Amino acid sequence: MTHTRFTSLTQKLPQTVPFVGPETQERQRGGPFLARLGANENVFGPSPKAIAAMQAASREIWKYGDPTSYDLRMALADHYDIGLDNIVVGEGIDGLLGYLVRLMVGSGDRVVTSDGAYPTFNYHVAGFGGELVKIPYVDDRENLLGLLAKAKEVDAKLVYFANPDNPMGTWVTGSEIQAALDLVPEGTVLILDEAYSEFAPKEAVPDIDINDPRVIRMRTFSKAYGMAGARVGYALGQSDLIGNFEKIRNHFGMNRAAQDGAIAALEDQTYLEDLVKKVALARERIYQIALDNGLNALPSATNFVSIDCGQDGAFAQRVLASLVAQGLFVRMPFVSPQNRCIRISAGTPQDLDILAELLPKALAQASNA
Amino acid sequence: MTHTRFTSLTQKLPQTVPFVGPETQERQRGGPFLARLGANENVFGPSPKAIAAMQAASREIWKYGDPTSYDLRMALADHYDIGLDNIVVGEGIDGLLGYLVRLMVGSGDRVVTSDGAYPTFNYHVAGFGGELVKIPYVDDRENLLGLLAKAKEVDAKLVYFANPDNPMGTWVTGSEIQAALDLVPEGTVLILDEAYSEFAPKEAVPDIDINDPRVIRMRTFSKAYGMAGARVGYALGQSDLIGNFEKIRNHFGMNRAAQDGAIAALEDQTYLEDLVKKVALARERIYQIALDNGLNALPSATNFVSIDCGQDGAFAQRVLASLVAQGLFVRMPFVSPQNRCIRISAGTPQDLDILAELLPKALAQASNA
Repeated sequence: MTHTRFTSLTQKLPQTVPFVGPETQERQRGGPFLARLGANENVFGPSPKAIAAMQAASREIWKYGDPTSYDLRMALADHYDIGLDNIVVGEGIDGLLGYLVRLMVGSGDRVVTSDGAYPTFNYHVAGFGGELVKIPYVDDRENLLGLLAKAKEVDAKLVYFANPDNPMGTWVTGSEIQAALDLVPEGTVLILDEAYSEFAPKEAVPDIDINDPRVIRMRTFSKAYGMAGARVGYALGQSDLIGNFEKIRNHFGMNRAAQDGAIAALEDQTYLEDLVKKVALARERIYQIALDNGLNALPSATNFVSIDCGQDGAFAQRVLASLVAQGLFVRMPFVSPQNRCIRISAGTPQDLDILAELLPKALAQASNA
Repeated sequence: MTHTRFTSLTQKLPQTVPFVGPETQERQRGGPFLARLGANENVFGPSPKAIAAMQAASREIWKYGDPTSYDLRMALADHYDIGLDNIVVGEGIDGLLGYLVRLMVGSGDRVVTSDGAYPTFNYHVAGFGGELVKIPYVDDRENLLGLLAKAKEVDAKLVYFANPDNPMGTWVTGSEIQAALDLVPEGTVLILDEAYSEFAPKEAVPDIDINDPRVIRMRTFSKAYGMAGARVGYALGQSDLIGNFEKIRNHFGMNRAAQDGAIAALEDQTYLEDLVKKVALARERIYQIALDNGLNALPSATNFVSIDCGQDGAFAQRVLASLVAQGLFVRMPFVSPQNRCIRISAGTPQDLDILAELLPKALAQASNA
């Protein structure tokens, strides 16, 4: 029944998914999870004003969304005091990363990232025939200077750097990033994935001229704004770079209600501030739960905490498997030595009561295996 | 400030948008349109059950949507009595067309379509470096046999064929399509864009084995189901072809509430049947408004009607410009001789009262220009 002639690149690609969703795991285990702390979703949810805006927009869903996302970009331009043409809105950071890779990466072009960093970015690079060059984390942090040196060495088109980092929650200071910009090789673009930046201390966010052509910043309404299911991300950068997205993006790809929700969420900074405090408390609780079990947790600038299970990746994998089997959706880093950890999203107090209850059993099971 | 090294393909592409949205036009004219009849949206809106499902899901929007769209695909598999692996869900037909082109079309590969057919498809083909080969409409209908003959002649990877057609509203019978399948060249895939099929007479919908590797069918919740702003499309086809989308699609690109809304909309077939009747009445009204103005309208199997303005493209363009200036959002075909028409979406009775009121003035203005 073969008939179709795929491109040579398509023929080489695997059928894959960067992450298995919790719904698939729930179907496999035959029931819902007790708590959902695996995907760094914001369990506290978005501003009630954002929910109300989405609900109102549901009645108008027969209309296509504005393909220019004008109102949302205006709101973001005001928020950041930048120009409309410095902003492109897309179907989550995932969608925008795919577009950026497509704009810049052809067959055999090099792209630099950290070994164990965001797999969806790697998926896009492979999907356009790019060649991934990876360097290790250092002390559980992405090695920005190492990434830039490697980019120069291999003549990379793109460098991926998340700050704060996922999956470790670690960060570098904004001034470190600013100082590193002069090391971005000519023609290379540094992707600064700031999905978690709203949770981070102010000093983790660099001050970069929006017209600096060496950097593109990726941000999202999925994390601090609590709207992961809405799929609203945006990229900030030099207008020439941003304008190129108009050549390839799915102009009518954005959900109309999601855009209205994002505008309302952005307006409600009071809610955001309160949310960030709740997440900070949840992080403290996770640190404490780790300590109560004789484990260390990594200081985090995000809405998740990586707990060091104190042994190797196989041990952490057993801890994770036990937690999942007991009904707690969690994930863990993929690569050694970071895979000695499990990664726990900031949950509600009730969610974290479940973690506190299940973790000792998981550790015991993993030790006795 | 040039710094970035785009691919050679990116450098050749224009910054463009396949369609200018009505919101942009409203900003330009300084006020809202009186009626929105230009984008073949379903002004009657979705089932109240779909709205309720989206509103309920808005409260859960902190969760990512299921990247496998399992529940929606299950509902579609039941609806069509096909397998889960024959269905891929994407960000509207637009998104799915982009993925399909990416899977199959590389630099210089030929793709066949009708001159004046869906521009977003052409945008994707150009965006992946494909070479578009166009043949004209015949008697305001897409020429299926001609498209397939041209595909054989130029060794095309893809052929695009919409049934019913947009922008003309015309259609061919399902049995004509079935008979033509044997003319699909080896290795070519026929894209059957059935965005409007729910509005069409039953005989316009072909009966094609879901495992036939020569065809992929594109369908949507944007039109008859009234959810254009939700961005939910799906493709139906042979599992091997469908499976290839897993290699490249944005797995987490789907809005969670939109998926829930689509499931509820699909369940409410009673609402759909009623809606199709309302649209049929609106078509009759548009035919009558045309007649009242001494014009003919093309029989349509969609939720829009092309009114033949009786002169050339320049005249129709003036009619359109006057309608838009008077506050009615409408569009028109791009290519001669189809561009002698203006295209009017099936509106509410109130919307069509506005059309009836404004069209005579537009025709007078166009004649006196």
